[in-house]
Amino acid sequence: MPSVPDPNSGIIADNSGCQNTIGYVIDLSPETGGAACFLDIAPGHLNRNGLLHGGIMTILLDVACGYAASLSFDRASLAPVLTVSLNMMYVAPVGAGRVTAIGTVTGGGRKICYANGELRDDQGQLIASSSCVFKRITKRAAP
Amino acid sequence: MPSVPDPNSGIIADNSGCQNTIGYVIDLSPETGGAACFLDIAPGHLNRNGLLHGGIMTILLDVACGYAASLSFDRASLAPVLTVSLNMMYVAPVGAGRVTAIGTVTGGGRKICYANGELRDDQGQLIASSSCVFKRITKRAAP
Amino acid sequence: MPSVPDPNSGIIADNSGCQNTIGYVIDLSPETGGAACFLDIAPGHLNRNGLLHGGIMTILLDVACGYAASLSFDRASLAPVLTVSLNMMYVAPVGAGRVTAIGTVTGGGRKICYANGELRDDQGQLIASSSCVFKRITKRAAP
Amino acid sequence: MPSVPDPNSGIIADNSGCQNTIGYVIDLSPETGGAACFLDIAPGHLNRNGLLHGGIMTILLDVACGYAASLSFDRASLAPVLTVSLNMMYVAPVGAGRVTAIGTVTGGGRKICYANGELRDDQGQLIASSSCVFKRITKRAAP
Repeated sequence: MPSVPDPNSGIIADNSGCQNTIGYVIDLSPETGGAACFLDIAPGHLNRNGLLHGGIMTILLDVACGYAASLSFDRASLAPVLTVSLNMMYVAPVGAGRVTAIGTVTGGGRKICYANGELRDDQGQLIASSSCVFKRITKRAAP
Repeated sequence: MPSVPDPNSGIIADNSGCQNTIGYVIDLSPETGGAACFLDIAPGHLNRNGLLHGGIMTILLDVACGYAASLSFDRASLAPVLTVSLNMMYVAPVGAGRVTAIGTVTGGGRKICYANGELRDDQGQLIASSSCVFKRITKRAAP
Repeated sequence: MPSVPDPNSGIIADNSGCQNTIGYVIDLSPETGGAACFLDIAPGHLNRNGLLHGGIMTILLDVACGYAASLSFDRASLAPVLTVSLNMMYVAPVGAGRVTAIGTVTGGGRKICYANGELRDDQGQLIASSSCVFKRITKRAAP
Repeated sequence: MPSVPDPNSGIIADNSGCQNTIGYVIDLSPETGGAACFLDIAPGHLNRNGLLHGGIMTILLDVACGYAASLSFDRASLAPVLTVSLNMMYVAPVGAGRVTAIGTVTGGGRKICYANGELRDDQGQLIASSSCVFKRITKRAAP
């Protein structure tokens, strides 16, 4: 089932249509600090200024923070969540290389989860940060 | 040049790698109220719950608001802009059909522009809204 | 009971310690469009630049949007709510006169409510806008 | 001059009308990590649920992040700044005791500064977090 990671690596590579379209990789192995999502920037990710599109940065941070929230609700089943609200700060531009988003849970309760994320380039430079609210949903909305 | 719309229709369909990857269409014709961006939802836009990915919604709203900001700075040349910050409210889920983002400028000065956006489905239902800050940049960051 | 408005006017003027400290007035009469909060700017509301403090603007918009959310959940009892997240755009400065925040509900369900707000000066100029998420709480957190 | 801290302590206690009204204290001493703003919660800071008003939390975080931005632009003169946009996550409620906001700069350039803030209670519990954009202004808007 695509939403459960490879138990040996924590890697999820083909979890959704969106993931296949963009080409990001989810890494839930403990070394990442919990929930990471990385992308090797390609021409299909660039905006009209030749830079990584801010919307793609948002996808990476939403995914990393959403998996952090899923893990915090239920590590075994990766509880499905919906993003309620999300805020982005686009701190620095990037045009090439690998970028990695790390999501971290900052608080929440039974149904609501707060998570922050950081997107960094392969030199460790902060590219963007996010603050997100997620809501746990009890069943999948689609079959 | 891809960033200038077809003068007869206001349509921009292949303006960037990101646009080609996602498949959204920009419509700058006056009937849209200024700056619109629409997408016909396909399997490659869905998240692991089978719904339009929130990050794709963000791309559509960022693009519509960014073009609204570009037009407000300089209608003739579509002044390039960078997104400084962006906030998303994910009001309702959507899984199929056409969604359309409309961006509207709410204020700003010589360098900073504030714009709000609304994403609606083909029944007019509000799906998501955004509040964005853009910064005018004087030249393209990439050749 | 201070949280219920005067039934003849819809005005709430002494609903909390915070309201007494800042001096804003809540107006739930139908003419406002639902939920308004206004303030006559005084020296005690200014920042170190002599302008209305952005945090005071936030209070006014949080209050107007929170009452809009309360009314949407339960008009009769003004259901108590907590702010989950809030985003502010500070569009223009203001230093004197009356400012009025209007909150409008944009969506939501049984427990979550989305509301947007606009703060305008006495000329109708947009000063700031907000996007907020509220959560209904079933009982007061304090006696 | 009230906007310059006491050189021996880094404390600013009466810098603006807003500060006097709310009663927060700014602490720019190096031990705080740069820019802190604390408040001893009193009845005049509470909302209609008997909890610290979210708008007051926002003031504390806006002030701490704004001073962090000021210091990053020009430590000697505390360069005046305006808040462009601000996002708040209200992670946990608090009703009494001292709360402290710490602001940290995450990036920026000559005119724009990004700063994040955390508000914690006297047990170190995270109460709220903020993400802010500031713009340097070259002169005071008021005499």
